[in-house]
Amino acid sequence: MQPPPATPGDPLDQVDTPALLVDLDAFERNLDRMTAETTARGLRLRPHAKTHKSADVAKAQIARGAVGLCCQKVSEAEALADGGVTDLLVSNQVAGSRKLERLAQLARRVRLGVCVDDAGNAAKIAQAAAAVGAEIDVLIEIDVGAGRCGLRDPEAVVPLAQQIAAAPSLRFAGLQAYNGTAQHLRTLEQRRAAISVAAETVRRATNALSAAGLSCDTVGGAGTGTYALEMAEGLWTELQPGSYCFMDADYAANGTPPSYEQSLTVLTTIMSAPEPGFAVCDAGHKACAIDSGLPRLASHPSVALIGASDEHGNIALPSGLAVSVGDRLHLIPGHIDPTVNLHDWYVCHRGGTVEAVWPVTARGAIF
Amino acid sequence: MQPPPATPGDPLDQVDTPALLVDLDAFERNLDRMTAETTARGLRLRPHAKTHKSADVAKAQIARGAVGLCCQKVSEAEALADGGVTDLLVSNQVAGSRKLERLAQLARRVRLGVCVDDAGNAAKIAQAAAAVGAEIDVLIEIDVGAGRCGLRDPEAVVPLAQQIAAAPSLRFAGLQAYNGTAQHLRTLEQRRAAISVAAETVRRATNALSAAGLSCDTVGGAGTGTYALEMAEGLWTELQPGSYCFMDADYAANGTPPSYEQSLTVLTTIMSAPEPGFAVCDAGHKACAIDSGLPRLASHPSVALIGASDEHGNIALPSGLAVSVGDRLHLIPGHIDPTVNLHDWYVCHRGGTVEAVWPVTARGAIF
Repeated sequence: MQPPPATPGDPLDQVDTPALLVDLDAFERNLDRMTAETTARGLRLRPHAKTHKSADVAKAQIARGAVGLCCQKVSEAEALADGGVTDLLVSNQVAGSRKLERLAQLARRVRLGVCVDDAGNAAKIAQAAAAVGAEIDVLIEIDVGAGRCGLRDPEAVVPLAQQIAAAPSLRFAGLQAYNGTAQHLRTLEQRRAAISVAAETVRRATNALSAAGLSCDTVGGAGTGTYALEMAEGLWTELQPGSYCFMDADYAANGTPPSYEQSLTVLTTIMSAPEPGFAVCDAGHKACAIDSGLPRLASHPSVALIGASDEHGNIALPSGLAVSVGDRLHLIPGHIDPTVNLHDWYVCHRGGTVEAVWPVTARGAIF
Repeated sequence: MQPPPATPGDPLDQVDTPALLVDLDAFERNLDRMTAETTARGLRLRPHAKTHKSADVAKAQIARGAVGLCCQKVSEAEALADGGVTDLLVSNQVAGSRKLERLAQLARRVRLGVCVDDAGNAAKIAQAAAAVGAEIDVLIEIDVGAGRCGLRDPEAVVPLAQQIAAAPSLRFAGLQAYNGTAQHLRTLEQRRAAISVAAETVRRATNALSAAGLSCDTVGGAGTGTYALEMAEGLWTELQPGSYCFMDADYAANGTPPSYEQSLTVLTTIMSAPEPGFAVCDAGHKACAIDSGLPRLASHPSVALIGASDEHGNIALPSGLAVSVGDRLHLIPGHIDPTVNLHDWYVCHRGGTVEAVWPVTARGAIF
C-alpha cells in the first residue's frame, strides 16, 4: 500500500499526484440529495460500495439513513465489516469453496445477504452456512434486461425459492432485479423503456411467488442512472445506487441525474509539454480507468484526453489553456468505480485545504 | 492488501479466484530466451518493471544478466529498491516537488537514472539532488515517433545535455529513445518502418551530441514487440523490454515475438451459467484490464470474452465447451501491465502445484 499523497492540513497544491480528490462539500450535498429523495420518503437505501470501496463513505451513507451497503465481492464485504458496517448484501453470485467458507464466516459477524441464480450454488451456500452455524439471506437474481447473471425465466424463481426456504441455514429474502446496462443508456427515454421491461419481469416473478404462497420481502436493484424510474414503478423496495456520491463523465454524458455534482476528480501533474498545444500528464490508465472513455478536463468538461497509456495521459490543450511542466490539472474520470479501485487513498478537501485522507478500504478486493 | 489466494503446496484447483497465475516453467524459458538473445550477445538488458512490478521477477531477471531495471514511477523504483534492486532507471519524466524529493532520496541508496525533456525540470532535479547530496544519471528523452514525451527536435539535445553536464548533482548519461506505439503495430513491416524512423532520429541526436563534444554512453529504448529491430540498427545500447516475461493477447495478435510463451493467465470461476452457450465468470475489468481488448480463453485463444463489467466477464461459449457454476477457466489478458497492477499476488505454479506466491511489490505505485 502506498503512503498517502497528502496529510490533513496540507494545502491542495502540495498533494502528490496522481491522487483521488474528494470535494467534501459536493460529496456531502450528493449524499444529502439521495437521502432526501429516498430514505426521507420511506424507501430503503442500500448504496453500492463497489463504487467507493470505503468504510468512511459507507458510514457517512449510513449516518444519513442507508440501511446497509451492497458489495460485489465477499472480500469487499469483509473489508466493510472490518470497518464497522453491520448489514451487507453481496449483490452478486458467489462461487468456489474458499469464497463460500469466507461468506459463511462473515455471516456469523454481520447481517449478510447474497444473490443466487443456480440451484447447485444455493445448495453449496446452504452447506457452507450450516457448517459454521450461520444464517444467510438469499435474494434470487432475475435477469431484467442486461443479459448477464440471473434467471432468464422469472417464473423459475418458485422452485429455487422453495429450495432456499427449505434450507435451515438460508432465509429466502426476495429478488435481485438490477439492470446495469440501463444505467449507461444515453437518453431518458431509453432508460425508461428498459426499466419498464424490468418492471414487467419483476411483476411476473412476484406474481409467481405469491401464487406459490412465498413472501418476497425485498426487491433490490436500481442504480444512479435509473433509480427514479424504479421508484416510480413502485415495485422495488431497496435501492442500490453507487456512483451518486462521486459521479463521472459517463453519467454526465447521459445528462442524468442532473442534481448530483462531480465531487471526485483525479489530480494530475503535467510531466511533459514538448510542443505548443500538447502536454502529457502523469495520470494514465493505471490512475484513471478508461473502460467508459478517456477522462475529461474538469476546467473544460467537453475536452477529453486524446490518448492514455499506462502512466501517461495525452492532452490536446484547448485554446486558452497553456501549461508548463509541473502545472496541475483536475480530471473527471470516464468511469468512477474502476478508477477508485486503482488508488489506495482518497484526499478529501474543503476550501483548498486537505481535511482528511481516507483509505480505499476494499481496494483490490476481487475475491 | 488482500491475503494471498493460495499457499505454496496447494493444488491449482484450490486457488481462490480471480488470481494471476504464473506458469514458472514457461516464465523461466521466457527469461532464458531474452538472455540468450541480448546479454549473451553482449548487449545491456534493463527489463521494464512496469509490466511485473515485482522484486521477485526483477531478481530473476538480474540473475540472468540484466544490468538493472526500468521503472515508470519513482514509487515503483522505491518498491524495487526496498526489494533489493540496486540499479534503477525511471524511464519517464518526474515532475512535482514531493516526487523530486523522493527521487533524490532514492538516489542516495541505489544507482538511479531519470529521463528529462525540459530544461526547467532538469534544473529542479539538479536542485533536489544537490539538496541531499545525491547524484542522478539523466537521459534526455527524444521523441522517436510516438508523439508522447520527448524533445521533438533531436538537435535540441545539445543545450539540454550541456545544462545537465554542468550540474554537479547530475550526470548526462545519454538518450532515451523508446517508441511505445511501435510495440503494438500489427505487422512486422509496420514495426520495421517505425523503428527505422526512430533510428534516424537517434542518429541525428547522437551526431549533434558528438559534434558538440558530448559523449553519449547510453541509448535506451526498445520493447518486447521491437527489440530485435533496435538491436539490428546497432544504435541502442540498453534494451528495455517488459512484457516478454509474461506476454499477452495483444502481442499474440501481432504474431511476434513468436518464441515467447504466454506464461501468465488469470484464473477465473464461472459464477453464473444462466442459459445454454453463455456463462459469466468472476473476472471483470477490475481483474483483467481491457484497454487493449477483452481477455481470451486460454483453452480457445481465438475466443475473446464478449463483454466485461467491473466484476463480471461475459462468455459466449465456443462449441464443445460446456461449463457449470464453479468451473474454472484460464484467461489471457489483452494487456499484461495494467492487469498485473490490479492484483496483490502472483500465484506461481509448476506441475499443477502452487510453488510460490509473490507479492506484486509495486502494485498501485502511481506516484
